[in-house]
Amino acid sequence: MNEIIQEVEMGQWRRTHSSSEIRSCSENDIVVVMGWVSSVRDHGNLRFIQLQDRKGSTQVVAKKGECPDPVLEQIQSLKEHSSIAIKGKVKLQQKSPSGAEIVPIELKVFSHARNAAPFLIQGKRNSIGLDTRLDLRALDLRRNSLQTIFHIRHTILKSIREFLDKEGFTEVNTPKMIATSTEGGAALFPIFYYDREAFLAQSPQLYKEQLTMSFENVFEIGPIFRAEPSRTNRHLSEAISIDTEMAFADYNDAMRLLENLLFHVFDSIRSINKHELSSSEIQIPQINIPLPRYSYAEILQTLHESGENVRYGDDLSPQVLKLSASNMNLDGFYFITDWPASIKPFYVKPDSKSEAKSESFDLMYRTLEISSGSTRINTKSELIDRMRKQGLNVQKFDYHLKVFDYGIPPHAGFGVGLERFLMAITGLDNIRDAAFYPRDIDRLAP
Amino acid sequence: MNEIIQEVEMGQWRRTHSSSEIRSCSENDIVVVMGWVSSVRDHGNLRFIQLQDRKGSTQVVAKKGECPDPVLEQIQSLKEHSSIAIKGKVKLQQKSPSGAEIVPIELKVFSHARNAAPFLIQGKRNSIGLDTRLDLRALDLRRNSLQTIFHIRHTILKSIREFLDKEGFTEVNTPKMIATSTEGGAALFPIFYYDREAFLAQSPQLYKEQLTMSFENVFEIGPIFRAEPSRTNRHLSEAISIDTEMAFADYNDAMRLLENLLFHVFDSIRSINKHELSSSEIQIPQINIPLPRYSYAEILQTLHESGENVRYGDDLSPQVLKLSASNMNLDGFYFITDWPASIKPFYVKPDSKSEAKSESFDLMYRTLEISSGSTRINTKSELIDRMRKQGLNVQKFDYHLKVFDYGIPPHAGFGVGLERFLMAITGLDNIRDAAFYPRDIDRLAP
Repeated sequence: MNEIIQEVEMGQWRRTHSSSEIRSCSENDIVVVMGWVSSVRDHGNLRFIQLQDRKGSTQVVAKKGECPDPVLEQIQSLKEHSSIAIKGKVKLQQKSPSGAEIVPIELKVFSHARNAAPFLIQGKRNSIGLDTRLDLRALDLRRNSLQTIFHIRHTILKSIREFLDKEGFTEVNTPKMIATSTEGGAALFPIFYYDREAFLAQSPQLYKEQLTMSFENVFEIGPIFRAEPSRTNRHLSEAISIDTEMAFADYNDAMRLLENLLFHVFDSIRSINKHELSSSEIQIPQINIPLPRYSYAEILQTLHESGENVRYGDDLSPQVLKLSASNMNLDGFYFITDWPASIKPFYVKPDSKSEAKSESFDLMYRTLEISSGSTRINTKSELIDRMRKQGLNVQKFDYHLKVFDYGIPPHAGFGVGLERFLMAITGLDNIRDAAFYPRDIDRLAP
Repeated sequence: MNEIIQEVEMGQWRRTHSSSEIRSCSENDIVVVMGWVSSVRDHGNLRFIQLQDRKGSTQVVAKKGECPDPVLEQIQSLKEHSSIAIKGKVKLQQKSPSGAEIVPIELKVFSHARNAAPFLIQGKRNSIGLDTRLDLRALDLRRNSLQTIFHIRHTILKSIREFLDKEGFTEVNTPKMIATSTEGGAALFPIFYYDREAFLAQSPQLYKEQLTMSFENVFEIGPIFRAEPSRTNRHLSEAISIDTEMAFADYNDAMRLLENLLFHVFDSIRSINKHELSSSEIQIPQINIPLPRYSYAEILQTLHESGENVRYGDDLSPQVLKLSASNMNLDGFYFITDWPASIKPFYVKPDSKSEAKSESFDLMYRTLEISSGSTRINTKSELIDRMRKQGLNVQKFDYHLKVFDYGIPPHAGFGVGLERFLMAITGLDNIRDAAFYPRDIDRLAP
């Protein structure tokens, strides 16, 4: 390795300013900036580095005579993506987008990019094969559009917790390694748990229900696992679920909580991510609460009217919903309520007046399901009855059922799929881009 | 089921006040309170219910003549732990601890306790077998002392995120289903991933390191999985890890971040959980920053001075640390720094001056390890070299190593074990009580 491309350690070097702070400096201030090289341009005696950090980017301008010759030489051999530090002098520039440039005095290369990147970070995300991008995901995530999307994701999580904390919810974490399937049928990942078989939890459902007994209102934000055999744009094998459960509440309370939560999240994104959004193509959808509520029966009615043959008890596929959309206002976020009990899990409470339907809802964004919620059954005998009807082995749920002998309160709740929610908000068309490192039937690495 | 013990639905009933709000009511205000029955006392024509909700408890006083006879009858058949609603009139009582009582007008039983609980909630936690409690954990968690502990846990998580958000960290979630072990040796849980073998992640280590490349400073709070064969009071098979990673930083920066984080957490607990702590036996330890820092070599020195035969490269067990504690101030929180590289994972950076030691630290509370951190290696060749020395299959890390070709910044970070941290703060002696539903070699349910 020749001297020029030798790498150095941090040592006593520390960043003094981020790229966004340079504009507030005075002319000739000495600063140390650190980040990665998003571009290098070489005009012989005039060389430019675009230095990117998490706050934005800064232009470094090295002119022969104005900056030391060895620094000019270092820049010549600098490759895009390398991690560097620059000590330099601030030069205020009204016309530069960052308001200031840096004239380098010293350049340290912490880590050289050894290869040319297999895709352009400036290029359109969609013009590069998704698999190529995912194979080098850490590099792919340097892309501006993905930076904005994941900063929005950060705001979503932050504002959800803020909201739930204010509403008196206690944060919980329930086990991901479990003895019995929660939802019955759906596909589970099996584990070797020491000498026994166990499964990865598809949802914290039964645990969060139990905990309403001791904490009343609880929430959990954590991974869920589904051995999903399909290859759609809306399914992951591992996703983040935002789960809530409330004591002394029914599904109407849960819907109200959810729409207020949405409103708070949208409000937070518009304020916290304002600057990034203004320079991005992302359009945050409008939301007005209360959201429209359509019962399952109403949707069926409009489908029948347009000649579609959907029977009571059929699920509503995205294709079918697209058909209703033309007759109803299904453009933004809305609820579909009162689903047939037969297509909802065993713990969902049937309607007290009509057993066929249930106190349940799905939150939809256009044809995408974002969240599912319901009033839950809180009497043991009714729960056992529903388990039997769904062909579940009641004995396997013994550890859960016995809790119902000790006065579990009436309760209701919902789970929101974070990646789907992020898709809806940012307009992503593939759920894989809404996860840092997505997992599906084909992908287990990185 | 006779009429008296029949259960009712929520219907239009909604809580108007929590127990802590009753004291702010006016005399004769009509309120609806909901919760579970923590005790019932029957003096014939005078009956008392202690109603517990997540904010505290309220006394309900039913006197013949003052409250309807059917309500008096209902109270007679009421069992502890049942979930109920009471509509009643507020009676201010200066001498009552809650400042007010309720005279019932109507009583609704949402869910009857069908059995007497197998343990007393008022009893000391330690006087009941842990397994008996864990078998009915949701009920056990109604215990006041555990309520306080898990409310403190909520504050810990909330204040950690608050702090890291302010410091510019981006929240991430990395996959829990992975193709290759991170730490090499340690015990993994294998999974069937569709048609392949995979493992549950022992830590988000390699992913969080990669993400410093795109997000600089990241944190993740999520489950980690370790097939721990031991049955100690300080190990779980599934735990919550608070992970951070910072770009352009070394282990000294990480230690400073961690101690400032601790300070903020303690401050938040003292303010948010003040009221609960004042009526509990929990003593939050004092913390002064900067925390004491002892190098591994210094600890060894004091051990040698007291005649202990611990060699350079040996781990420091709790037993061994107890011996040093008499000669050093190892009473509260402190760091042990500069560990031998040979007993740290491959990604830990050896000291540039002395290869045998590493830029690493453990945060200790007395003899309990709370956190581990280090500067990480950020050059590919050095990483490969360390992997080989530790007998790892370099090819299996290909998906990780290739990221190092694209200018990964120097970085450092740490992981904190949430349950251990909670033990240290609240004085719990068994880590199982620091988890909602603990997992160990013997326990997979509930």
